[in-house]
Amino acid sequence: DIFDAVITHFQSSPIKQDLTGQHWVITAGPTMEAIDPVRYISNHSSGKMGYALAKAAIARGAKVTLISGPVQIPSPIGANVIAVKSADEMLTACEQSMSTQADVFIGAAAVADFKMKAASDQKMKKQSDTNEVTLTLVKNPDIIATLAQQYCAKTMVGFAAETQNVIEYAKSKLERKGLDIIVANDVSRTDIGFNQDENQVTVITKDNTWSPDKAAKSELANQLVEFIQQHIKSAP
Amino acid sequence: DIFDAVITHFQSSPIKQDLTGQHWVITAGPTMEAIDPVRYISNHSSGKMGYALAKAAIARGAKVTLISGPVQIPSPIGANVIAVKSADEMLTACEQSMSTQADVFIGAAAVADFKMKAASDQKMKKQSDTNEVTLTLVKNPDIIATLAQQYCAKTMVGFAAETQNVIEYAKSKLERKGLDIIVANDVSRTDIGFNQDENQVTVITKDNTWSPDKAAKSELANQLVEFIQQHIKSAP
Repeated sequence: DIFDAVITHFQSSPIKQDLTGQHWVITAGPTMEAIDPVRYISNHSSGKMGYALAKAAIARGAKVTLISGPVQIPSPIGANVIAVKSADEMLTACEQSMSTQADVFIGAAAVADFKMKAASDQKMKKQSDTNEVTLTLVKNPDIIATLAQQYCAKTMVGFAAETQNVIEYAKSKLERKGLDIIVANDVSRTDIGFNQDENQVTVITKDNTWSPDKAAKSELANQLVEFIQQHIKSAP
Repeated sequence: DIFDAVITHFQSSPIKQDLTGQHWVITAGPTMEAIDPVRYISNHSSGKMGYALAKAAIARGAKVTLISGPVQIPSPIGANVIAVKSADEMLTACEQSMSTQADVFIGAAAVADFKMKAASDQKMKKQSDTNEVTLTLVKNPDIIATLAQQYCAKTMVGFAAETQNVIEYAKSKLERKGLDIIVANDVSRTDIGFNQDENQVTVITKDNTWSPDKAAKSELANQLVEFIQQHIKSAP
């Protein structure tokens, strides 16, 4: 009957539930660092890659906590979404999520490297006698490096968005931050990456480099989740 | 018959076409000023108020050019939408639009007051030995003041988003920039303004101050278009 036909149809390409029982923590989107109540510094990031990774991990049975900066994408069904603005807020949310039995951390967010040394409570006024203004910025916490140090038994996956010497910078980031996997992409290309639906990346581990074909972010997310799953650290 | 019933229904509350033959130029949304290829400075602005004004003016028969910074809103049907990023791009688009017989200019965009003195072509690298970075910013062109000077025969409507001394700052802006009408709102209130669907404003002219009730931006837009229409300068 129809019921059996439907069941058979969906069983013909079942998604393996090999991540059941695992908890993946994924960050996505930009962070927004206040200059004053109306102005801010941010990064180009649609959040599409991080959201696609969350969906792909959920489809394979993982429990996913998605810590997201301000984006214009609906929450993936089944994800526990924590909305944040600044890098400081994102780090706090990550630390809280990682402390409860996380297996994998994927830092797909485009975290602002710098924040204002002192954000203003009031809208800064333009002074007619000054043509130049200087903003003093200080470093934001390095979220993934901080987490990699605290949770070194977990599988840590980072992203590296670069405009030049992409692979070289990514390799140095992998080592310096103590990551297991880094996903590098060249954001100077306008056909992929920021706000685009397709992406092309190079996946780098301590021993290997893998360059999957350019693909839709949803398809690439499936391939990355598969790759990460094969590289999960066994419990210490 | 049904056809007549439908006609009668819509005729029962016809929108007057009193702006037919007029050209309104409206700016909306934030501007985005590049720091480098991945970072930028921007302002909180959803673009909802400017888009609502464009719809309201189109509904009354105006030809509308909507010059929009990056927003997440569909283009209003019937508007000529020009998408821009930076304040410099917005000014150029405004000047081109105003030069062809515009009657009204409404500056509803949240234009960044400052841009980078020199944006970087490459992603700036975090230096491990420096904890502080200074960004040198220079003033952006004052779009509405520039246009008010060039097109003083047109009706110029500005917006003033302030966090303190709202009315006082707005009045000084009206005079200093040579505007006919300024729409002031208090962006320190979280129930109205940025990203909200409702707004409460104070409308200020040289002689009058008018405070309509808090309302949906679409309803407020109708009231503002009515007010502006009554204050259109007669041709010189």
